[in-house]
Amino acid sequence: MSIRQKLKETGQKARVAALELSVASAAVRQSAIEGMAARLLSAYDEIMQANQLDMAKAAASAADEAFLKRLQITEKIFSYMHERLLEAAKLPDPLGIVIEGHVEPSGLQVSRVSVPLGVIGIIYEARPNVTTDAAAVALKSGNAVILRGGSEAWQTNGVLVRLMREAIVEQGLPADAVQTLSSPDRAAVRELLRLDKYVDVIIPRGGKSLIKAVSSQSRIPVIKHYDGICHLYLAADADIDMAIALTVNSKCQRVEVCNALETLLVDQACAKYLLPELEKALGAAGVTIRGCSRTRSILPRIEAASRSDWTTEYLAPILAVKVVDGPGAAIGHINQYGSGHTDGIVTTNLATARRFLDQVDSASVLVNASTRLSGGGDYGMGAVVGISTGRLHARGPVGARELTTYKWQVRGDGQLRK
Amino acid sequence: MSIRQKLKETGQKARVAALELSVASAAVRQSAIEGMAARLLSAYDEIMQANQLDMAKAAASAADEAFLKRLQITEKIFSYMHERLLEAAKLPDPLGIVIEGHVEPSGLQVSRVSVPLGVIGIIYEARPNVTTDAAAVALKSGNAVILRGGSEAWQTNGVLVRLMREAIVEQGLPADAVQTLSSPDRAAVRELLRLDKYVDVIIPRGGKSLIKAVSSQSRIPVIKHYDGICHLYLAADADIDMAIALTVNSKCQRVEVCNALETLLVDQACAKYLLPELEKALGAAGVTIRGCSRTRSILPRIEAASRSDWTTEYLAPILAVKVVDGPGAAIGHINQYGSGHTDGIVTTNLATARRFLDQVDSASVLVNASTRLSGGGDYGMGAVVGISTGRLHARGPVGARELTTYKWQVRGDGQLRK
Repeated sequence: MSIRQKLKETGQKARVAALELSVASAAVRQSAIEGMAARLLSAYDEIMQANQLDMAKAAASAADEAFLKRLQITEKIFSYMHERLLEAAKLPDPLGIVIEGHVEPSGLQVSRVSVPLGVIGIIYEARPNVTTDAAAVALKSGNAVILRGGSEAWQTNGVLVRLMREAIVEQGLPADAVQTLSSPDRAAVRELLRLDKYVDVIIPRGGKSLIKAVSSQSRIPVIKHYDGICHLYLAADADIDMAIALTVNSKCQRVEVCNALETLLVDQACAKYLLPELEKALGAAGVTIRGCSRTRSILPRIEAASRSDWTTEYLAPILAVKVVDGPGAAIGHINQYGSGHTDGIVTTNLATARRFLDQVDSASVLVNASTRLSGGGDYGMGAVVGISTGRLHARGPVGARELTTYKWQVRGDGQLRK
Repeated sequence: MSIRQKLKETGQKARVAALELSVASAAVRQSAIEGMAARLLSAYDEIMQANQLDMAKAAASAADEAFLKRLQITEKIFSYMHERLLEAAKLPDPLGIVIEGHVEPSGLQVSRVSVPLGVIGIIYEARPNVTTDAAAVALKSGNAVILRGGSEAWQTNGVLVRLMREAIVEQGLPADAVQTLSSPDRAAVRELLRLDKYVDVIIPRGGKSLIKAVSSQSRIPVIKHYDGICHLYLAADADIDMAIALTVNSKCQRVEVCNALETLLVDQACAKYLLPELEKALGAAGVTIRGCSRTRSILPRIEAASRSDWTTEYLAPILAVKVVDGPGAAIGHINQYGSGHTDGIVTTNLATARRFLDQVDSASVLVNASTRLSGGGDYGMGAVVGISTGRLHARGPVGARELTTYKWQVRGDGQLRK
């Protein structure tokens, strides 16, 4: 059978499974996810052995340390995978919610009710925890999922998917609710992206190059996650201690992630006393500052920022700093140079906070909170399959609710169109 | 300036206008749409003259009657265009709605608030009423719009867009909230579809070939409207009079539209007495029946349906009829052959109605109501820019609310990520 035929079959199986899943009860779906968690625990040794095989092979092919770190299931990651399954199982059910409803003058009862999206394709790197996270979120929302993890995690994902399918079948649900591509071949990914007849949405998770490649090839709508060029604006009236604590936490709590701070905007009214304090605190945390000319007139020892610094996602202990004339200039800078991911303000002024919340055009806009708090967990959404920087369908974290669509249910008693 | 440069400029202007619109008050946006309606009335003569120029040119180039009918602004269509503007103005504002909100254990106040999508491109045929409808719906939801109507309506659209821009500017809003492509050239459409940096969504309105061409070329997400292969299932216990009235209305009220009935499913338990009545009523309305073998054993004079009839959108006075064994068979047929647009049931049984509503996987599922009632107006949504047969973002009618997305607004008092 050709790869194209195989993939078509995968798509058809997923579509059939999706239809079955869409009428499965919340209790059954929850039990299936709990079953996944239980099987994960009892198959600990098998999972770890498979992962060690993958690790050995990757190490032999001279994979770098960051790559191996993503591939490895440590004790901590194993617990995390297990916990996230249990957490997903316990989330409120996202299906069958009456999003809105009313009665028309004609007597027609009209309501919009949440239903699963259908079939979801997830393309990701060699990170085994995504395998369990994604399957759990998809099943929670009644979707069938086709997983395509990095081929270096082949053994590990094989075991994980087998265990999850067992848990699904145990609840009388179709095994094909969770499938992986049967070939580690890249050609299989290309064929997956052509299955617009069977797959409703593709979610790529990984670096920018993966996302670009997927988006340009896909015939299926893609929920994308591009840059996180995140800003914090310290307003004239910001509380000093809070401004420093939030800057340091936003930048340093974890530098390599999408909602880490990349550009700090400091109001000219507080720059003189805030910037020296910030230089100390950030310096102690090992962060290098690149500043605009006004910043450098206050902090003469720092590097100069060039225009490209305003559009760079460092994902490293570097912070661009700009002095701005007020909230309007800060908002203008963010809307011009930002990526619409996560942007925050530190202020004590109610009107300034309101203006910032209204006018900054980003997926997450925060007042007096660390940019690192934008995301599924801290929004009470549990596990997510990604973060959308697009505007269509889902914006920001993509959890179980974001993997639903709706249908219109209409109840009449014989109404005709006149 | 090349077409590409021109289009890039159009996109940039739209993006700037969108940002301004996103912070305009509901009252101002409403006034602008009311201003459009007022200007339409006072420019009646000018609009009609421009339309006559377009009509004369199209007639000279031997356009067919259906084409000319779509192009012409009759008195009735003029009133309709005017009313729809007023209707859109009065709709509840779709922006700033707190879709959900809660307080996290950390004290973080998290809410999801509706905001405009941004910039919308609408590509449609030579139907001038779409020009005013689309601009009104887009403005109502705070979006900038780039309109590309069929080049045969060039003069008419030119006048309409000029009037609408005047009304927009009068309210202090940016004229570029509504733009048309400055060239009737098809190359301009191709360039529009490449503006993924500036345009958030493309909505094609027209025949299948237009939609397919747009979807295959576009780098921008497309909200599509494909087939409407709509079903009505007459259950064993259907009220006879209601079954006949709903079948005739669903099929005949207007045959050429997407939510007109195409396939009738009749339960074997009532086929014997219902089919002869239906043959009479449909015959009187000029509808030809194509039946399955079981249908033909009851109605021997009708044509035989072939397999392709189950997947055909006739848009004509032809109806495919199939006798089915019960609700399961009816639901199975609809989910296999239907297009997920609009499907209905006629029944008196509560459990059957519930099963149908739950299991039919379509954008609109109706109980005891004409399929012709699926759509914006009869759902209380007012003017719509299209009907989505896709599952992502919007499903079914696309009105002002469906042209919004959301942002996460988060209010803290110094929360850090641990």
